[in-house]
Amino acid sequence: PPSPLQPPGLPLAPCRSFSNNKIQVELDESSGVATMKFKSPPVNSLSLEFLTEFSISLEKLENNRACRGVIITSALPKIFSSGLDITEMCGKSMEHYAEFWRAVQELWLRLYGSSMVTVAAVNGSSPAGGCLVALSCDYRIMAENPKFSIGLNESQLGIVAPFWFKDTFVNVVGHRIAERSLQLGSLHPAPEAHRLGLVDELVPEEKLMEKAAAVMAQWLALPDHARQLTKAMMRKAVLDRLVAHREEDIKNFITFISKESIQKSLRMYMEMLKKKK
Amino acid sequence: PPSPLQPPGLPLAPCRSFSNNKIQVELDESSGVATMKFKSPPVNSLSLEFLTEFSISLEKLENNRACRGVIITSALPKIFSSGLDITEMCGKSMEHYAEFWRAVQELWLRLYGSSMVTVAAVNGSSPAGGCLVALSCDYRIMAENPKFSIGLNESQLGIVAPFWFKDTFVNVVGHRIAERSLQLGSLHPAPEAHRLGLVDELVPEEKLMEKAAAVMAQWLALPDHARQLTKAMMRKAVLDRLVAHREEDIKNFITFISKESIQKSLRMYMEMLKKKK
Amino acid sequence: PPSPLQPPGLPLAPCRSFSNNKIQVELDESSGVATMKFKSPPVNSLSLEFLTEFSISLEKLENNRACRGVIITSALPKIFSSGLDITEMCGKSMEHYAEFWRAVQELWLRLYGSSMVTVAAVNGSSPAGGCLVALSCDYRIMAENPKFSIGLNESQLGIVAPFWFKDTFVNVVGHRIAERSLQLGSLHPAPEAHRLGLVDELVPEEKLMEKAAAVMAQWLALPDHARQLTKAMMRKAVLDRLVAHREEDIKNFITFISKESIQKSLRMYMEMLKKKK
Repeated sequence: PPSPLQPPGLPLAPCRSFSNNKIQVELDESSGVATMKFKSPPVNSLSLEFLTEFSISLEKLENNRACRGVIITSALPKIFSSGLDITEMCGKSMEHYAEFWRAVQELWLRLYGSSMVTVAAVNGSSPAGGCLVALSCDYRIMAENPKFSIGLNESQLGIVAPFWFKDTFVNVVGHRIAERSLQLGSLHPAPEAHRLGLVDELVPEEKLMEKAAAVMAQWLALPDHARQLTKAMMRKAVLDRLVAHREEDIKNFITFISKESIQKSLRMYMEMLKKKK
Repeated sequence: PPSPLQPPGLPLAPCRSFSNNKIQVELDESSGVATMKFKSPPVNSLSLEFLTEFSISLEKLENNRACRGVIITSALPKIFSSGLDITEMCGKSMEHYAEFWRAVQELWLRLYGSSMVTVAAVNGSSPAGGCLVALSCDYRIMAENPKFSIGLNESQLGIVAPFWFKDTFVNVVGHRIAERSLQLGSLHPAPEAHRLGLVDELVPEEKLMEKAAAVMAQWLALPDHARQLTKAMMRKAVLDRLVAHREEDIKNFITFISKESIQKSLRMYMEMLKKKK
Repeated sequence: PPSPLQPPGLPLAPCRSFSNNKIQVELDESSGVATMKFKSPPVNSLSLEFLTEFSISLEKLENNRACRGVIITSALPKIFSSGLDITEMCGKSMEHYAEFWRAVQELWLRLYGSSMVTVAAVNGSSPAGGCLVALSCDYRIMAENPKFSIGLNESQLGIVAPFWFKDTFVNVVGHRIAERSLQLGSLHPAPEAHRLGLVDELVPEEKLMEKAAAVMAQWLALPDHARQLTKAMMRKAVLDRLVAHREEDIKNFITFISKESIQKSLRMYMEMLKKKK
């Protein structure tokens, strides 16, 4: 049923799109649905520049009354997002680490706390920060390709997911699965991710965007005001916890990431990635 | 095994029953089990009068040492309870809204905090407040008819389930399912409700009361004292939260429900219901 | 991948073992894996002596840099551990109850908070405190024999699992299942325990230790430092809660257990156990 609280969509309104360097955004004003496509080769790393653009794009849509929902997906084949850009965490200054981490927090606060309906159309692998982006949406649809995997695999790199990654994960899969998956740094192939509840639905890759649009339509059938208040109620505790500990969390990150042992571990990991190519 | 802490049931004790306007209560003193049947046509709406009678009936049973458990069901076909009576929330005074909401809180505090074993025998559809009644019991058995549905569908009406509805729901189905179901205002057909854990068991409608009695007997085999302390420990955090914020919750309800946009939305919903008939 | 943060295992290192009265411990220094075998006939009751030895053994391993993981199992057939020794809770002095309960707390704080990888190889029944030991590990593998059961069945004895048993249980199986299982004092046969998530995996009894070693190797492939910080983050809230309320919890236990009604109930239970033999 259409929302009694919302003005009807403007039929036949033109599509508006804006594209910066790393993310392409298209807003269909007739449906009120924006599509954000990550297009930062080779693997949609969440660099400082990417995160900033992502946050600004979300803010623009949030403030655009014509926009009620966002579908987030990748324009690159096989990869949704590879997560936080390791080069931002390696051999940089304390100031840079602080700026980078603040940008990660900012993105999560905007996305997890968005009043829009957010649907992740996960059309490729999605480790670490890429998984966090998906976890922060309202609904996750993944291409059923078992070669695509998703998970918070930070511990594989010798680093630790911060408490708010963990809180977001626990809210989705529960404590037991989150505890095991985080300790093992598991990357779950799509079918396993679905069994664990990490993604809500699997569809053939070619049907992914069609399905995302259908799911979005279902969510947009609800009155925005009631849905937004309900979402805020569900997510408030976890959002408030980061807001209350934001500076402390940045300090912790800087202390941890600038340890020589961690830097060495990250350098080894980057070497390994280079050899893979 | 029989409880070492409890006196044995009095065999061949007479059944006592009391019936007010809207709920019929029968207590079988030999088993210690009361049956409460909602009989307020057409749909067992939780009006102020119904809620008051419900609370008083629970209090009577709670204070009756012969009563150890309650089975809650409907005397009407196809409907367990349609939830809060919308007419109580539409076009009334602030004082009325406050009195009504206090009665809703009171009922939930009594039922969710009951020291008796509470089994919901859900023999019909159970939206919104009707679902809350079922969620507040220790165990939920539902008729396996897929035409019967259950869920907290408040957002469909443009209103928002309060935090203690949400807490009760999360305790039963976990955070992810609660978040999605509450945002979408989902009414889950019985088989889906069972898959989600919203109800514990499905049985053919004609076996519902027999099954409820068998489940009750299983729960009553435990020593009351240990079971009651365990139940209190499990539910204390969520009960305490409403107790601590009760007046604030009433104020929030009044502010929200008396908004013109919400009143309009509820009037439209009632019109729609009338046309359906 | 091997951990960049950890020194490699010392190949061909000798096995060191130490055995006290009730628990046999073997450490394979080449793999860094210790095996603890409960061998306190007839049923591996957690007596004060057993608990003390258990805590000391864990402490020794925790402080041994050659040890990174522990597999916990039973040397007796058909029983993992029968849980807290009832004779320690029956007809003793207040001082004894306090000392005993402090030892139970101590064991749980060490095991649930262990920085080592802990795998429970549950090769027999595991009621009450025995179940707590398994729940406190990182991973639970159980022999698939349906005659073996596991659960927190305290309420069957007329007693109540303390809040930190409950918190540990909720972290593993979620609120709804924990609430029902604790109220009913359920002992779940292995297949049911697996369905509920109470154990992570079932294997034929003869493959149990082999499987435990394989799982351990998988967990040890992760960098210790990252895994340990992640584990601490997951378990901190629940551990802190007991630490903050430890003396209060001891007082509550003493008050409860020294009630005449509870003492009578425990004596009856012990009589029943004796007759069974």
